[in-house]
Amino acid sequence: MDERVLVPWQETREGAPGDLAVDVYDGDSEPPGDLSDVVFFVLPYYRRQAPKLVPSMPRLRVLQTLNAGYDDLLPLLRPGVTLCNGRGLHDASTAEHALGLILASQRDFPRWRDAQREGRWDTEHTRSLTDSRVLIIGYGSIGAALDTRLRACEAEVVRVARRPRPAEDVHGIADLPRLLPSADIVVLIAPLTADTRGLIGSRELALLRDDALVVNVGRGPVLDTAALLAENGRVRAALDVTDPEPLPADHPLWHAPGVFITPHVAGGSASFYPRAKRLVAEQLRRFATGEPLANVVRTG
Amino acid sequence: MDERVLVPWQETREGAPGDLAVDVYDGDSEPPGDLSDVVFFVLPYYRRQAPKLVPSMPRLRVLQTLNAGYDDLLPLLRPGVTLCNGRGLHDASTAEHALGLILASQRDFPRWRDAQREGRWDTEHTRSLTDSRVLIIGYGSIGAALDTRLRACEAEVVRVARRPRPAEDVHGIADLPRLLPSADIVVLIAPLTADTRGLIGSRELALLRDDALVVNVGRGPVLDTAALLAENGRVRAALDVTDPEPLPADHPLWHAPGVFITPHVAGGSASFYPRAKRLVAEQLRRFATGEPLANVVRTG
Ligand SMILES: NC(=O)c1ccc[n+]([C@@H]2O[C@H](COP(=O)([O-])OP(=O)(O)OC[C@H]3O[C@@H](n4cnc5c(N)ncnc54)[C@H](OP(=O)(O)O)[C@@H]3O)[C@@H](O)[C@H]2O)c1
Ligand SMILES: NC(=O)c1ccc[n+]([C@@H]2O[C@H](COP(=O)([O-])OP(=O)(O)OC[C@H]3O[C@@H](n4cnc5c(N)ncnc54)[C@H](OP(=O)(O)O)[C@@H]3O)[C@@H](O)[C@H]2O)c1
Repeated sequence: MDERVLVPWQETREGAPGDLAVDVYDGDSEPPGDLSDVVFFVLPYYRRQAPKLVPSMPRLRVLQTLNAGYDDLLPLLRPGVTLCNGRGLHDASTAEHALGLILASQRDFPRWRDAQREGRWDTEHTRSLTDSRVLIIGYGSIGAALDTRLRACEAEVVRVARRPRPAEDVHGIADLPRLLPSADIVVLIAPLTADTRGLIGSRELALLRDDALVVNVGRGPVLDTAALLAENGRVRAALDVTDPEPLPADHPLWHAPGVFITPHVAGGSASFYPRAKRLVAEQLRRFATGEPLANVVRTG
Repeated sequence: MDERVLVPWQETREGAPGDLAVDVYDGDSEPPGDLSDVVFFVLPYYRRQAPKLVPSMPRLRVLQTLNAGYDDLLPLLRPGVTLCNGRGLHDASTAEHALGLILASQRDFPRWRDAQREGRWDTEHTRSLTDSRVLIIGYGSIGAALDTRLRACEAEVVRVARRPRPAEDVHGIADLPRLLPSADIVVLIAPLTADTRGLIGSRELALLRDDALVVNVGRGPVLDTAALLAENGRVRAALDVTDPEPLPADHPLWHAPGVFITPHVAGGSASFYPRAKRLVAEQLRRFATGEPLANVVRTG
């Protein structure tokens, strides 16, 4: 019986090692009828239906996601299936989106957009990023990329991860209560785990200065939505991920004071695709030659 | 007869050299009735009425603006009056605003803001700044600050000033027609002069790629408004300065496709004030001791 690889892009098919049978499934088109010979599945990015095909792939050996987060895929892992993620692919895209959210919030862009729609030229001073103190909670691959950008903007950066790494000036999460009161801006970029769910709730928000900004580009449930709503604009927020997600049309978060929302688009901008295609080509090469895969996060 | 200094902030008055008579005029309060003894006038920032007081100051020796641009003040200069500007004060604030305009435009923030108002969660890929080529036209003090920020965002920067400076990798403006076709983003941050008025008109816009972005944080008339409107969205724009300015409520630019507008707020964010106060205190010290002033741009 043949073995088949399923990838989301025609280019990857054309460039694949000669002895691999490669088919394209982009997540929008109809999936191939018979999936029993699929051994390597690259999930199309942004297509929530694709993971549902995994149970129909009894011979699957590699599940490759292009996301950095993979909490939603763990229930699909069976013995013999290796899960690889997209660590690093999103760093530049996500970091620049986080920076954009910070700048847009500090410089009042949502307000200027509203004024533009009404043809209103109202000039007023705004906050700035320059000279602000920014706490990055989840100082990993994306956090480091954001750090570089923030320091170029003359902001002060305070780094937080699970455990302290003094050599890199990284605090452990246990320091959080001590660090929150002096922050102007807090960026959440940690994965969703049992420890990070509700990491920022009413107690943590209460420790923040009036008018502080919370940016979430990690996962929605890391920030407690009800606690944020209860702040009623005392603390501002810029959210690329929300809880629930997608946000239903009648959810109060849409119209909460001082909140700006983008619909989970941080990781997937134009710069992501060339980088994603290079990763998949390299993974197929390794798979074909039996070399160890990159970005392995779990073995079922 | 006494000599008097007029400054916009109480703190500057308190910290002034002992032998200077300093009064506060913030541009909002009623101006002092008798201005005949004013020898040093610091124009309040953002208050368009203040320059009208200059003709009532027959003994004026120093006119200090906190802006970088000063084209509007030149008609007020009489023999014996020295004009000093705010060169450098706005660098961080203006550069971060320009960066914010670029990110907001590349990452579709105006569209997400409109969707937020309607409670609409529509996810779609966007452009990015990462891997883009950005042309900075007017590579001076602010341009250099923007360059640092853009390179931290993994963008490629091409620098243009009046004359080439090969050692700094700066092109002369004569190269413009050759440089425009390969730019993804063009940032205008040149002062308004006879040479820069209409610098970017229909001929230059026509040389740009489809979907290229023009950012103007310099002066409105450097970009030809009618030519931009004629592009009808083929080229996008993010404008902190416009022509005319302020933009009247019924002007078509407000609703032109692909255009995002902020109301001339790039230079005046929170980080500007501490820096502006330090400059004024230093200028008063120099004035009192007879040392040469900083930032002299013209002597009447
Ligand atoms: N909005 C989007 O479109 C988008 C795009 C890409 C990624 N993301 C999200 O961003 C997350 C991070 O991505 P990444 O590539 O930077 O991952 P990464 O390199 O693995 O870094 C994750 C960081 O989070 C820290 N962390 C984990 N648990 C923590 C806790 N309980 N308290 C504090 N810090 C904790 C880790 O600390 P240690 O170093 O101590 O382990 C690590 O520094 C992803 O998991 C994904 O959820 C979102
Ligand atoms: N939107 C805002 O709120 C805001 C805030 C601050 C400033 N601004 C504007 O920004 C302008 C620049 O400020 P800055 O502090 O960076 O000034 P700067 O240091 O004097 O730099 C101006 C630059 O423009 C270049 N330039 C002048 N004429 C040119 C021409 N015809 N073609 C191409 N380049 C030309 C100069 O070239 P050379 O080096 O060859 O002379 C110089 O590099 C100000 O004049 C002001 O109008 C706006």
